[in-house]
Amino acid sequence: MKRIESTKNPQVKQWKKLLTRKERDKTRLFLIEGFHLVEEALASGVSLVQLIIEESKAIPSEWNVGHIPITVVTEGVMREISDTETPQGIAAVCRQLSDESLDWSKAKLLLVDAVQDPGNVGTMIRTADAAGVDAVILGEGCVDVYNPKVIRATQGSLFHLPIIRGSLSKWMQTLKEKNIPIYGTSLENGDDYRKVHASGAFALLVGNEGSGVSKEWLEQTTKNLYIPIHGQAESLNVAVATGILLYHLRG
Amino acid sequence: MKRIESTKNPQVKQWKKLLTRKERDKTRLFLIEGFHLVEEALASGVSLVQLIIEESKAIPSEWNVGHIPITVVTEGVMREISDTETPQGIAAVCRQLSDESLDWSKAKLLLVDAVQDPGNVGTMIRTADAAGVDAVILGEGCVDVYNPKVIRATQGSLFHLPIIRGSLSKWMQTLKEKNIPIYGTSLENGDDYRKVHASGAFALLVGNEGSGVSKEWLEQTTKNLYIPIHGQAESLNVAVATGILLYHLRG
Repeated sequence: MKRIESTKNPQVKQWKKLLTRKERDKTRLFLIEGFHLVEEALASGVSLVQLIIEESKAIPSEWNVGHIPITVVTEGVMREISDTETPQGIAAVCRQLSDESLDWSKAKLLLVDAVQDPGNVGTMIRTADAAGVDAVILGEGCVDVYNPKVIRATQGSLFHLPIIRGSLSKWMQTLKEKNIPIYGTSLENGDDYRKVHASGAFALLVGNEGSGVSKEWLEQTTKNLYIPIHGQAESLNVAVATGILLYHLRG
Repeated sequence: MKRIESTKNPQVKQWKKLLTRKERDKTRLFLIEGFHLVEEALASGVSLVQLIIEESKAIPSEWNVGHIPITVVTEGVMREISDTETPQGIAAVCRQLSDESLDWSKAKLLLVDAVQDPGNVGTMIRTADAAGVDAVILGEGCVDVYNPKVIRATQGSLFHLPIIRGSLSKWMQTLKEKNIPIYGTSLENGDDYRKVHASGAFALLVGNEGSGVSKEWLEQTTKNLYIPIHGQAESLNVAVATGILLYHLRG
C-alpha cells in the first residue's frame, strides 16, 4: 500500500487538478469523496482507478476492493484534495462512463439546456433516477456532471444511469427520427401539463434557471408544457419542476 | 437622509445582529438584501422599517418609499451586514409577519417537520406559493424562515403567504377538529400518492431530509403517502417531493 505524507507530492497535485473541468475532460477521470459515494460507485460497476484513504480511517471490511490500488494519506493531504469543509477521509479516482446504448423503444430521457447551478443539476439527476428515467442528456452550457458539488447533490444517482454530455441539436434530431415525443417546458405558451400523458418513450426538455429553455429548441419540440402557477410565485425551481413533470408524464 | 461610514457604528452592529436567529426572535425584525427581494417586500405590504442603500447605488424611481427612513452607507458597511459574497448594495429591515387568520373551509396547508437545510426550506416555501398553498407551518426543529439563506431561496415567496412557526401537535389537533385531512409522507408504509386526490382543504406534512416525518406525527395523520421510486435512487429531495405531492393533491 502506497503512502503519501506531503501535499507537495506530484500525485497529490494530480488529484487536485481533477477538481477542474479541464483536467477531468483531458483525463476522462473524476474524483469522488465520502463513504456513501464510494460505496455507490463500487456497487454500480463504475471503474475505480484508485482508492485514497486517510491514515486514521479504515476501508469497511465488506467492501470488495482487492483489485483497486489503495493509497494511504495524511489528514493534510486529504484536506488538500477535498472539495468539502469536513472531509470524511475517503476518496476515489473513477473513470468517466462512456455513453451507453439505449433501448430506444421505451427510452425515457431528460434533456437539460444550460442549467448552471451544481445543486440543481445534481438534484435533477437524482430526481430522474427516482422517476425511472433511462438517461440524462446535459446540453451545451450545463455545469460539468463531474463537478464535486454536482456529484454530492446526485446522492449517488450519477452511478445509476448514463449521464451524457451532448449536443441538444443532434439529440433532438435523433429523437425525431425515432418518433419519440419531445416535451419542452415553457413559462408562457404551450399546454397545461395536466392535459398531456406520455405512454412509453418520451423526452422531457428543461432549461436554464433564469431564462428557461432557449427559443431555438422550443421551436423544435413535439409540444411545450407549462406548470400553472396558482399563487404569486414567479416560477418554480427547475429541479422541482422536473420532478413534477417527470412523475406526471410517466403516470 | 442618514449616512453611516463606519462599520463600528452601533446601528451597523444592530443590523449585523439580525443575522442571528436570537436577535430576530427578540426584535421580531429581519434583514433582506437585493433589489428583487426589497421590491417583493414593498409590493406585498410587509412593513419595512428601514432601507439601507450603498452610496454608489440608487433606489429605483418607481418605488414608492417616501414613508420609509433611508440610510446611505459605504461599500464596507454594506459588506459588513451582508450575508452574500457579492452584495447588491441594497438591504432593508422588515417587521416579521404575524400569523394571519385563515379561511379554514378551503385552506391548503404545508406542514414541515424538522427540515434543516435553508435551501430546501426556502424552495419548499416557493413551491408552496406556486401551488397555491394558503400557509406554511414550520414545526419544531426547522431552520428559521428569516435566515438569509432561506429568504434567498424563497425568491420572494415568503412575502406572498403566511409562514408560521408553530407546534405541529397543536396544528394537527386543530386540523382534526376542522375535519381537514392530513396527508403525511413516508418512504415505507402508506398509500401510493397517485391513488389519493384531495378536494378543497387539505394539509400535507413533509419531513426531515434524512429521517423523514417523525413517527409520532405519522401516527396522527389521516393517511400517509409515498412516492414510488422507479429507479435506484434511495429517495427524492424533500423540496422535489413536496412539489410532486402538492401539485398532485390540488389536481
